[in-house]
Amino acid sequence: MTRPDKAILLLSGGMDSTTLLWWMREQGISNIHTVSIDYGQRHRVELDASRTLSASGGAVSHKVISLDLTQIGGSPLTDEALAVPTAEDDRQISTVVPYRNMLFVTAAAAYGEQISISDLFISPVKDDSAAYRDCRREFYDALERSLSLGATHDTTARIHTPFVDWSKADVIAEGLKLSVPYDQTHTCYEGTRPACGRCDACYERIEAFRANETADPIPYHINMA
Amino acid sequence: MTRPDKAILLLSGGMDSTTLLWWMREQGISNIHTVSIDYGQRHRVELDASRTLSASGGAVSHKVISLDLTQIGGSPLTDEALAVPTAEDDRQISTVVPYRNMLFVTAAAAYGEQISISDLFISPVKDDSAAYRDCRREFYDALERSLSLGATHDTTARIHTPFVDWSKADVIAEGLKLSVPYDQTHTCYEGTRPACGRCDACYERIEAFRANETADPIPYHINMA
Repeated sequence: MTRPDKAILLLSGGMDSTTLLWWMREQGISNIHTVSIDYGQRHRVELDASRTLSASGGAVSHKVISLDLTQIGGSPLTDEALAVPTAEDDRQISTVVPYRNMLFVTAAAAYGEQISISDLFISPVKDDSAAYRDCRREFYDALERSLSLGATHDTTARIHTPFVDWSKADVIAEGLKLSVPYDQTHTCYEGTRPACGRCDACYERIEAFRANETADPIPYHINMA
Repeated sequence: MTRPDKAILLLSGGMDSTTLLWWMREQGISNIHTVSIDYGQRHRVELDASRTLSASGGAVSHKVISLDLTQIGGSPLTDEALAVPTAEDDRQISTVVPYRNMLFVTAAAAYGEQISISDLFISPVKDDSAAYRDCRREFYDALERSLSLGATHDTTARIHTPFVDWSKADVIAEGLKLSVPYDQTHTCYEGTRPACGRCDACYERIEAFRANETADPIPYHINMA
């Protein structure tokens, strides 16, 4: 990877994108602008976590872009009428809002054009790309080309996905080395604090900490023993 | 072109997309769902025109999706503080909101996934593709691939741009044959009725009607003689 001088990071406030912020700083990228998307998510706690983590992670600026995906519909992450699947349900697919990542990256790229940045970082991991087609590197290669061809002026857009071949356990292992403040991150699909401990997102997080034989610093509703 | 049974059309209420609606019907596509984007445009009259034209054009449904591009900034089409360029100014480039078409098409594709439609129609013309990189077919080829790879399930997304090699005069010529109600369409960047007659959009429209030796049925503020 060529290390850019300045970059935009899509920061959700979850463990993967937060670890990526610390990782980027470790790589020597000093001019980092974080973008969070307010997509009408049930768990507003994510947006608060992002703002806090952007500052403590040393980002230069933090921008919230509203993209109301509730208009598109179909996901329990935005639709109060649908139940959030538990880890026992069919894995993840029903939590997808169509083209969510594509809309997020494109909106971030549009903002990037305004501040003259064409390097974007996003944090899909190996576990995601098995369940979500828009977490595969192949998709980001195509998207990079669309962004380059669709920019106002001749541009080489780059979408960096350094964790795309890492498991969530790998991410946590790296983050623990970098002293990422995981107590400030938010993962639970239910959007509650303490976290539910039952949804698919909580399940994956708990497993990733277990694999590192480390206690997750956030509280859960259920007994984790 | 393979003629799809059902399709989504991005309908702005301008002369190109409206002509495309009539053209699609002429091609025998009966199941047409129109999508208009409320992107915070100054000229709200566009959204009213779209709704009216969707109905009179025989579309099956009309959906308005809000994508607030004023958050991204940089264009006089959304920013009250910036002056709309006249036809004498540097052509068009300053009216661009970055990745506007990419966001519009992706949002329409997301909605399309919900209603099981993967054929999208959009109406860039030759005059646009000279000024806007995201009006070129090359860009839509890349975007088509991104949409196919990023869909929730294995999908072949198609973005149809049948007017991409046509001039605006060609579009009007076709529309006049199809009896498109141009009196109901809206073009002016200033968003006024009567139209300003001075902005770049008015200028192009007036020229396209002149090339067809036909009177434009909408009223203008300035004397068109």
